[in-house]
Amino acid sequence: MSLQKLCELPEWKKLVEQADKMDLPENHLKYLVKEKNRLEKFSLQGAEIFYDFSRQRVDEKTINLLFELADARELKENFNLMAAGGKVNTTENRAALHTASRDFLNDSILVDNKDVMPEIRRVREEIKEFVSKVHNGEITGSTGKPFKQIVVIGIGGSYLGTEFISSALRAYADKNIEIEYLSNVDIHNFGRIISYIDPKITMWIVISKNYTTAETMANAKLASAFMEGKGLDPAKHFVTVTSKGSPGDDKKTPVIRSFHMFDFIGGRYSVTSAVGGVPLSLYLGYDRFERFLKGAEEMDNHAKSAPVHQNLPLVAAIIGVWNNNFLGYNEQAIIPYAAPLHKLPPHIQQLYMESNGKSVTRAGDILNEPTGVIVFGEPGTNAQHSFFQLAHQGRPFPIDFIGVIKPQYEQFQGRSKGVTNHQELWANLIAQPMALAAGKDDKDNARHFSGNRPSSTIVLNDLTPESIGRLLAFYEAKTVFEAFIWDINPFDQFGVELGKTMASGIRNEIAAKNDKSNHTFEGMDSITRFYLDTLFSGRLKD
Amino acid sequence: MSLQKLCELPEWKKLVEQADKMDLPENHLKYLVKEKNRLEKFSLQGAEIFYDFSRQRVDEKTINLLFELADARELKENFNLMAAGGKVNTTENRAALHTASRDFLNDSILVDNKDVMPEIRRVREEIKEFVSKVHNGEITGSTGKPFKQIVVIGIGGSYLGTEFISSALRAYADKNIEIEYLSNVDIHNFGRIISYIDPKITMWIVISKNYTTAETMANAKLASAFMEGKGLDPAKHFVTVTSKGSPGDDKKTPVIRSFHMFDFIGGRYSVTSAVGGVPLSLYLGYDRFERFLKGAEEMDNHAKSAPVHQNLPLVAAIIGVWNNNFLGYNEQAIIPYAAPLHKLPPHIQQLYMESNGKSVTRAGDILNEPTGVIVFGEPGTNAQHSFFQLAHQGRPFPIDFIGVIKPQYEQFQGRSKGVTNHQELWANLIAQPMALAAGKDDKDNARHFSGNRPSSTIVLNDLTPESIGRLLAFYEAKTVFEAFIWDINPFDQFGVELGKTMASGIRNEIAAKNDKSNHTFEGMDSITRFYLDTLFSGRLKD
Repeated sequence: MSLQKLCELPEWKKLVEQADKMDLPENHLKYLVKEKNRLEKFSLQGAEIFYDFSRQRVDEKTINLLFELADARELKENFNLMAAGGKVNTTENRAALHTASRDFLNDSILVDNKDVMPEIRRVREEIKEFVSKVHNGEITGSTGKPFKQIVVIGIGGSYLGTEFISSALRAYADKNIEIEYLSNVDIHNFGRIISYIDPKITMWIVISKNYTTAETMANAKLASAFMEGKGLDPAKHFVTVTSKGSPGDDKKTPVIRSFHMFDFIGGRYSVTSAVGGVPLSLYLGYDRFERFLKGAEEMDNHAKSAPVHQNLPLVAAIIGVWNNNFLGYNEQAIIPYAAPLHKLPPHIQQLYMESNGKSVTRAGDILNEPTGVIVFGEPGTNAQHSFFQLAHQGRPFPIDFIGVIKPQYEQFQGRSKGVTNHQELWANLIAQPMALAAGKDDKDNARHFSGNRPSSTIVLNDLTPESIGRLLAFYEAKTVFEAFIWDINPFDQFGVELGKTMASGIRNEIAAKNDKSNHTFEGMDSITRFYLDTLFSGRLKD
Repeated sequence: MSLQKLCELPEWKKLVEQADKMDLPENHLKYLVKEKNRLEKFSLQGAEIFYDFSRQRVDEKTINLLFELADARELKENFNLMAAGGKVNTTENRAALHTASRDFLNDSILVDNKDVMPEIRRVREEIKEFVSKVHNGEITGSTGKPFKQIVVIGIGGSYLGTEFISSALRAYADKNIEIEYLSNVDIHNFGRIISYIDPKITMWIVISKNYTTAETMANAKLASAFMEGKGLDPAKHFVTVTSKGSPGDDKKTPVIRSFHMFDFIGGRYSVTSAVGGVPLSLYLGYDRFERFLKGAEEMDNHAKSAPVHQNLPLVAAIIGVWNNNFLGYNEQAIIPYAAPLHKLPPHIQQLYMESNGKSVTRAGDILNEPTGVIVFGEPGTNAQHSFFQLAHQGRPFPIDFIGVIKPQYEQFQGRSKGVTNHQELWANLIAQPMALAAGKDDKDNARHFSGNRPSSTIVLNDLTPESIGRLLAFYEAKTVFEAFIWDINPFDQFGVELGKTMASGIRNEIAAKNDKSNHTFEGMDSITRFYLDTLFSGRLKD
């Protein structure tokens, strides 16, 4: 069923008018931030996260109109439908149950009248039992040595979330196990990894839902040949995380253990499933992985049950749409003032841009409004010394600043200019949103700051597994809330198919040439032919 | 002297009209790419780099109009003026002579009638001699052990270029020396590094032009205290790269050696000076650093002397301005299909966004046209599994694809689906620009690809030091050519000052509270006060 077109919604029309009003000089952020109780009115707290949108270009009327839009698009109802197993992935006729993978409350969630919770719990139990045997040395490599190095072979959603969580929680990694990611098919990625691992103590975890992803298969094959070349039995060094019955779950190619993933959890939402569960439990211990899940669950419950006007990811989503569709910003930066979160921006870049980079409604109609923005970011204060010149005096873009009250290391209290490093970090975290919002007049145009540049500030108590889980689930929920406003499907990715198909045709040409050196690329267009000839010639023409 | 306003230039007006024409359905890229000799007409080669703009939304008329714009703005003259020591950094009344730092041809370059080449050569000689003594064990740490670990302390331009080059050339690092970057003031950055270095064999290289950068000073202080705590003499473990006479070049705080940087080379252009020279020569050997310089010089010479219509960085710059100012794209992605280039996007993000994120002409007039775009990127094929859904079916953005014919590792010729990993990578590199350009019709809108999405493809022969130098200098020249079109100053960064000033005020408040625990933050605005109270309370209120 088609929803009403966005541009025809009365709530949307009112917001278009409201955007004109917010563009008036008297609504410059330098005035808005000085309003009485600005922060109290435009901030929220829930699931131990503080969300401050006082430096967004909104007033009470704007927010109320956005709440009306949220109601008109039934955001919470959609979210709860998703979490209850509704087939919200309409184009693929599937549920989207990443929330179920960290649901410790509901006994059963039905999809097609089948309860999915028992298998979710079973996989978690299998992970727990497996990891304990690896840690205590019951499960070892083929020479009997305990595993000390893990290489995750997987690309996109099969590793970005895990990479984010493992780097965020590195301070907790006390199992004497290192973790690496072999994602890219680029041979440099493989070459670099095998240049320093010790194969006897290495476990390869191959992660692929259908076990056909070209990059992952190529790397798994190389890794297997490498292990055999070292006289080691791949069956004792490989683990797979894949769909039940996929080629990776086939007794014909034996592995230490195969863990299942489900078609109702998409790759970019899968870090709380076995995709993250197996490597993260090995790296951090199963208990910490479960603490991480419980943090995510806490935010899920908040997203499900908090009223619209107190709902952090929902409010973040309507602000996102406001900035995008009404104020015309095309990007969203994520700047964590916490180095362990340095892989958050690339993870959210994938989560958000793959989910919301769509142009079609769930009913298949072409949308007239732009959808997902471009997400990018680096940690602060590094970003200040990189692209903040443009943020302050060039093309404006909205920013999520993220701060953490308690760092993972507290033993360093040395002071420079009277403050600790952590305090220096916070001085900058506090200063930047205000500088962007307020600006500063100067008669010299080169030293003039126009201000009125919007940002949110998100504060976490700490960087514990729970807090990281909450933050992850916050961005996941924000992403799907935005999709529900546009009425797009955030769970499919048909946009990656054309490139795959074309690469497959080119791969066949290369394979033909490998096979017969006199093969020419006649069937290809002339540009493609040039590149194929260049690759085989080994060098640009002089 | 003010140049004529862009919007009043006849060349600019013609381009505005031309953009309307290129928006017509018959000028969709799916037709343009099929034109006879499309690639021959819209590609260039120089300094061993191939630059293909056949998948940009241009025809011959567009390109000719852009050449007229280039002539009107005297791009090559400006570049040569810059390279000859002209004071092109107008707001700071300085030259911008990064090209001089790799100039092996010119005997002398005068700035204020003083030849700068002797001191450039002298610093290079000092680096060469120093590095050789470190490598042969003449210069050691305070216990007499040779140095095996380097930590560069520096932020922004003091490390991003070096990080890019060191990761690109990691395959050449045969000096048994590891390199790390302590950039962020975030205590997690310091805590992580000292968790695994061995202080006895560690050399700290502190890089800061004026030796006052808050982050760098805080980290240097922590590092020095850490070394003393281990019973090691900082004077035997610290090196500085700084301006002559700065506090880092003061005999009162002795160091192993202090190398000079010059006010005519800005941070983001400084990797070919001592800023990159000291750490990179230690890591790779001085000879390879010089090979890298010679590659950069080659591209500089090309940029200086190749005619406008054959000039790679100049053509890339006018295409950049065409996409930005006439076709309305706000972003530029950089997608290297070469994992060793994974730090190229963050380096160019800084180089470009800090240089061109301006709103004021060199004469101090406010520009009406947008300047620098937002630069971001990840390596391919990883990016395909991350944000390419949006690239194909969401909001379009231009992309630079970068391919390398010969990888650094050639020993892996195992095949999957009939091709090697390197060939699989190329199959994707070839397929993506064409898929984006041509698109594909489908009655099902969710599977429809609108195409007409522009990209360039840049091909390098290999990833040698020379090739990396050429690529670096290509992007540096492209950046300043774009600035010359807009008539902005790409060498200053006043936009970072306001945040620094405000952070300094907040730091003082924190220091006051550290000093006297009953200090209150009365002088601060209420939002700032909230954050300061939160930091000191140690936890969000429940």
